[in-house]
Amino acid sequence: MKIQRYRHDSEYSYTLGATLTFELVKCARELAERVFISTETAVSGGIGELVALCESLHIPVEQNDKAFHILSPKGNCYVIGEFRKQHKRIGHGNHILLVNPSDAGNLGTILRTAAGFGMTNIAILPPAADCYDPRTVRASMGAIFHVNIEYFESIGAYRERFPENALYAFMLTGSRPIEEAASTAAAPFSLIFGNEATGLPEEYASFARSVLIPHSHAIDSLNLPIAAGIGMYVFTRQETR
Amino acid sequence: MKIQRYRHDSEYSYTLGATLTFELVKCARELAERVFISTETAVSGGIGELVALCESLHIPVEQNDKAFHILSPKGNCYVIGEFRKQHKRIGHGNHILLVNPSDAGNLGTILRTAAGFGMTNIAILPPAADCYDPRTVRASMGAIFHVNIEYFESIGAYRERFPENALYAFMLTGSRPIEEAASTAAAPFSLIFGNEATGLPEEYASFARSVLIPHSHAIDSLNLPIAAGIGMYVFTRQETR
Repeated sequence: MKIQRYRHDSEYSYTLGATLTFELVKCARELAERVFISTETAVSGGIGELVALCESLHIPVEQNDKAFHILSPKGNCYVIGEFRKQHKRIGHGNHILLVNPSDAGNLGTILRTAAGFGMTNIAILPPAADCYDPRTVRASMGAIFHVNIEYFESIGAYRERFPENALYAFMLTGSRPIEEAASTAAAPFSLIFGNEATGLPEEYASFARSVLIPHSHAIDSLNLPIAAGIGMYVFTRQETR
Repeated sequence: MKIQRYRHDSEYSYTLGATLTFELVKCARELAERVFISTETAVSGGIGELVALCESLHIPVEQNDKAFHILSPKGNCYVIGEFRKQHKRIGHGNHILLVNPSDAGNLGTILRTAAGFGMTNIAILPPAADCYDPRTVRASMGAIFHVNIEYFESIGAYRERFPENALYAFMLTGSRPIEEAASTAAAPFSLIFGNEATGLPEEYASFARSVLIPHSHAIDSLNLPIAAGIGMYVFTRQETR
């Protein structure tokens, strides 16, 4: 099977690095297709446990330096996992709704936090970063294998599927401080975060409850994954404690 | 004056990008040395306001394409500010103490959050990322100009200077959940966070109150800037609200 640089329409994506590949093999064996190791890795060893695990799970391990040149041209990566992308639908319950998140690293960090706070259903409105971009996968530290992600074509399509969810839109112009909003929130709820540079369109305040994370005037805004992290933490505090 | 690639021991650092350079000129005029614009920028315009501001503040503006080749080889940057690095001492009060933070981007994001939550004194224990690395400066979104940062040679040296601070060490093995710790915390306090990969050494639990941010087992840990963001948010909630 030919190895190509990752593209949005590729059927497969990749876990770059040993820790991440371990996570793939352990938590999403059904998606794992192959594991590549470099000649250097094969000689130096140190991944015996991973190779043994792959063998016991019947996942082919290939020594393939070309895969590294194509998939990790910058180097410093000695194990790569190849896995089939899977597009699941999200279920009912609490959601994170990301509107136009543009950075793959940020998206991965948000997935990691979401998995940590038990918010395993993530809705995304495009244009948006690709949740299977290897940079997203890497920043998620494997959390991508613990959450469901679904892209919706519009906020209307999302609301039609989940009319029962109370919508909380995090905005710099939010009318309720987060603690007040969270203290009266009843599940199921959706925590909505906008684009890194532009935030959420003002219209979101007309159909969602707008929420503010108070901060000083020394900064224009919090970084998106930080705002999402605080939002998820505060809204799920009772459950994860 | 010769332009060299940024190094840890350089006397100057750089703001890469127009927004960041604006922040430099507006908030730290005393540090600003020069502003570089590329030929392309000079022709296309769109930075008239910045140039006018520099002129009114007597900051030289140079059209210098070489500066861009050296300082921003990847391109997509059309304005660069040069500023003198300033090593301030932190004052008494609440602190963030970062032990061996290794990633410049993470450090910058933490500075941004710290400025947002009014925690403007940041102590760092090396080995650590450089707070004046242009990547730190960029990730801070200019917050670097609103905080004091001081590197200490050891935890002992830090504790000797600030014996009055109650120490809260964020650890995966923390004995108190964060809400409980924060509800009884009295200023001045120090919120202590460890390295991205290894966290804090266990010994911190012997002289600091160890704090836990509860999360699910789906992840090994929260991302460092996320943990620091939640920590700062919860401990300063009363003040920023």
